[in-house]
Amino acid sequence: MKIGEWFERPAAWLDGDAASAVVVSSRVRLARNLEDAAFPGWAGEEERVRVWERLRASFAAVPALETALCIGNEEMTDLERTLLFERHLVSLEHARQGRGSGLALRADEQLSVMVNEEDHLRLQALSPGLNLRACWQRVNALDDALEADTRYAFSPDWGYLTACPTNVGTGMRASVMLHLPALALLDEMSRTVKGIQKIGLAVRGLWGEGTEAHGNLFQVSNQVTLGEREETLLERLEQVVRELMEHEENARGRLLEKRETLLRDQTGRAVGILGRAHILASREALDLLSALRLGIESGMLKDVDRRVIDDLLLRVQPAHVQWSAGRRLTATERDEARAAMVRGRLAAALERPRRRRKSDE
Amino acid sequence: MKIGEWFERPAAWLDGDAASAVVVSSRVRLARNLEDAAFPGWAGEEERVRVWERLRASFAAVPALETALCIGNEEMTDLERTLLFERHLVSLEHARQGRGSGLALRADEQLSVMVNEEDHLRLQALSPGLNLRACWQRVNALDDALEADTRYAFSPDWGYLTACPTNVGTGMRASVMLHLPALALLDEMSRTVKGIQKIGLAVRGLWGEGTEAHGNLFQVSNQVTLGEREETLLERLEQVVRELMEHEENARGRLLEKRETLLRDQTGRAVGILGRAHILASREALDLLSALRLGIESGMLKDVDRRVIDDLLLRVQPAHVQWSAGRRLTATERDEARAAMVRGRLAAALERPRRRRKSDE
Repeated sequence: MKIGEWFERPAAWLDGDAASAVVVSSRVRLARNLEDAAFPGWAGEEERVRVWERLRASFAAVPALETALCIGNEEMTDLERTLLFERHLVSLEHARQGRGSGLALRADEQLSVMVNEEDHLRLQALSPGLNLRACWQRVNALDDALEADTRYAFSPDWGYLTACPTNVGTGMRASVMLHLPALALLDEMSRTVKGIQKIGLAVRGLWGEGTEAHGNLFQVSNQVTLGEREETLLERLEQVVRELMEHEENARGRLLEKRETLLRDQTGRAVGILGRAHILASREALDLLSALRLGIESGMLKDVDRRVIDDLLLRVQPAHVQWSAGRRLTATERDEARAAMVRGRLAAALERPRRRRKSDE
Repeated sequence: MKIGEWFERPAAWLDGDAASAVVVSSRVRLARNLEDAAFPGWAGEEERVRVWERLRASFAAVPALETALCIGNEEMTDLERTLLFERHLVSLEHARQGRGSGLALRADEQLSVMVNEEDHLRLQALSPGLNLRACWQRVNALDDALEADTRYAFSPDWGYLTACPTNVGTGMRASVMLHLPALALLDEMSRTVKGIQKIGLAVRGLWGEGTEAHGNLFQVSNQVTLGEREETLLERLEQVVRELMEHEENARGRLLEKRETLLRDQTGRAVGILGRAHILASREALDLLSALRLGIESGMLKDVDRRVIDDLLLRVQPAHVQWSAGRRLTATERDEARAAMVRGRLAAALERPRRRRKSDE
């Protein structure tokens, strides 16, 4: 499969059928390093290239990976690497690497390996909805398969050794992406975030570390990687996620019961602006799509399929807009192209059920 | 004519045919006081009632007034007085007065007299478009007619005496209301306002003194009332207004030429929000209607008659919304009623030409 074909498709983790209204996706990531090579940050380019070539060869022997794409960073354009980042298939850090780094990816996007990001190996399982256990099993199986002919840097005292001390131990970081528009609308997010941080979990925005929560999309992940079993860490995270789901559903209930007009207003404005704007920044687009998603889920907007909105959440990202245009755009042109794309897709989505109704008559 | 009937009609000064795109309306107002009665601020209620009764009787004898409504403030509800204020037929100060104050109004709203506002008499001529001379002639003729059997407080040195020293002399205040959305969009208003103030004119918002320029509606008026002939004051004001018109038209030209997408965006968003919001504050409504008005005048929105928008500029005001509802509304209910009213009228306006086109087919 060619890299270009990837970006025509909706992102697998944004699968509208499987993802719940509140939990968008789950991810479990393992950091691993080879015993006999310098960590990527210390290695020269030639050593990194050697590691990448060696690992690339070993991926072919791992059936679980069913590698559909195995590609060196230097074989991709900046834009293609950023597209992969926007699809959550690589980290921003990885997208910035050149020769000596690379990616192996399963066709369904649910399993991938970044080579020579901060660590030699970053194994990732990604799945729509709340699916931490399945992600863990999948990434764990991949880890075992790779370990069969690779010796990892491992200390009997500390566990897996990693470039950053915050990953030492299990090397595992699990995260869940949640859509929490009702809590945000009722201004209850900052209290909620503080509560989560108190129990040792991290809350971040859509694109991970240091990003704001555009589109009311929040990632909750474990901070602790050391001194506990993976299953215990996952259970604690899942417990918190279930509580967050309950909070959000409760907030949605309160909105519907006591502030239905506010919901209608937010939904109406989102349809109105997305359907008619000619200049649309990515941040505003995400926030309005978030309102629309809530509107659909609360029954305020019956004519639009949520998958259209979920797909747009991906396609309004800068690199995706750039890619759709097929040429280099300035920031201004990008905001215009984004608006035109959203107008078109939304008009088509609103037109579709109308036609269906007409043909029913 | 009954007071209630007034509020069904569009405001005469917002007559879409006569008003230009930039100049909405012109107004000339004269402050006069009786020689033989204490000024309203010094008079007791009984003396104010005597003055009102006496002037009320004299209005009947003035053919130019063709008085369609002659009504004491105590005969009106607070809401009715505020409605008159929102229609620019009385001042806010006058709307706040009770027994002993009153209003005489010609059926076409182009001529009116407030009794016992700050002065005994405030004569006002109001007209759509740039029409200062006609306003002056009309109000001057009314002044002469009233003076035939009334002695005004007049000093050979100072001219007409008034409650506030800023009105002494001619007692004349002329003002022009302009819609300046392009200058505002290009961020050129504050520079423009400073230039106008330097030459001794005042710039205020839609509702006069101390109000912000909601809806990009600005009132320009003379500050000087003393030491110059009325015609000279009017000429100077008209000259500045013509320059402002040119600036605004120039700004619109630049927008169309260099930033057409921005114009399209503003118009589209305004249609989108006004057409779909369920909660709409008066300030936001005015600003969006302003964008729509500019959109129509720049050819971005061809399907909507500007008169619909001009009428809405009046009907989104709090008292008008309240009056339409026919019952006392809380601020929240008012924002909801305003949104519903705007949605309905805009949908009807957008539907009309579509039907017309269909029947043409």
